[in-house]
Amino acid sequence: MEFFEAVKKRYSYRGKYRSSPVARGDLQKILEAGLAAPSGCNTQTTSCIGLDDPELIRSVGTLIKSSAVTVAPAAICVLTQRKPGYADVYFNVQDYAAAIENMLLAITALGYASCWIEGQVTGDPKIPAEIGRLLNIPPEYSVVAYLPVGVAEGEGKRPRYKPFAERAWFNGFGKN
Amino acid sequence: MEFFEAVKKRYSYRGKYRSSPVARGDLQKILEAGLAAPSGCNTQTTSCIGLDDPELIRSVGTLIKSSAVTVAPAAICVLTQRKPGYADVYFNVQDYAAAIENMLLAITALGYASCWIEGQVTGDPKIPAEIGRLLNIPPEYSVVAYLPVGVAEGEGKRPRYKPFAERAWFNGFGKN
Repeated sequence: MEFFEAVKKRYSYRGKYRSSPVARGDLQKILEAGLAAPSGCNTQTTSCIGLDDPELIRSVGTLIKSSAVTVAPAAICVLTQRKPGYADVYFNVQDYAAAIENMLLAITALGYASCWIEGQVTGDPKIPAEIGRLLNIPPEYSVVAYLPVGVAEGEGKRPRYKPFAERAWFNGFGKN
Repeated sequence: MEFFEAVKKRYSYRGKYRSSPVARGDLQKILEAGLAAPSGCNTQTTSCIGLDDPELIRSVGTLIKSSAVTVAPAAICVLTQRKPGYADVYFNVQDYAAAIENMLLAITALGYASCWIEGQVTGDPKIPAEIGRLLNIPPEYSVVAYLPVGVAEGEGKRPRYKPFAERAWFNGFGKN
């Protein structure tokens, strides 16, 4: 899919998914896109676990209280390592956000839908701890987000965006 | 450009730029791609100022002590508003990182080069304050990053990436 088309088509899908599977090759391409994102001082603080085992997906999914987590045939669990870029300056949040955005666009480009689920994962420390136990994640990694992946059953509701002129300008704040 | 090609081609360019201008329409498309990124609870905390005024670009560029800021014909100044997604939970760092990643990919897809400059902008509070003065940015917005935009004069050095198997797995940590 053309890049700008993928950007336009991507949105946070909170509906049901079809049962048609996500090919392992597609899941790999999505993960590769995530890892290709830049990271502060090239620290590569982001890691990912692709899920396509239905039992695991059900177990992880029941831990996350989000309307966007209906059972999808695949999912991605996003991990971060809190390593400084330099001195005591950390970019790992920016790093995983850029990786997630790459993956959401890749998911869209391959004809799937997803939703960036973060607050419902990290809001209660028990949830990442439980996910960590299920997926054998070492303590130096933190679970920060969850992305279901699958073919959308229907069309979801797109959020309203403010007009361009309220958020972007040229050569000075408020100038169009 | 095809989405996965843009992901593969994008890298942090730290070389010189050709003087050939960036069309205003291209700069607008890049900004639009940035604003199309998701934001936590759709708070749309990211704003951007596109720069194509050579005098302004020179003035802003001299404030930022980065080897990646050689004079480019255009640039983007990225702003954030620290507004909570809900309660006291903030996603504005994730929001602007996703917007920046969209813009870096858009820049690549249109045949330009760029580099995500953040630490050299925010590391010294005098720098965003000075940029804010130059661009009339209100105090409720913070300058968080700067992206030069232009045609690369040559090929830059690409960072080394860890192999896939060291950063991504299937159905459990470390499992391939």
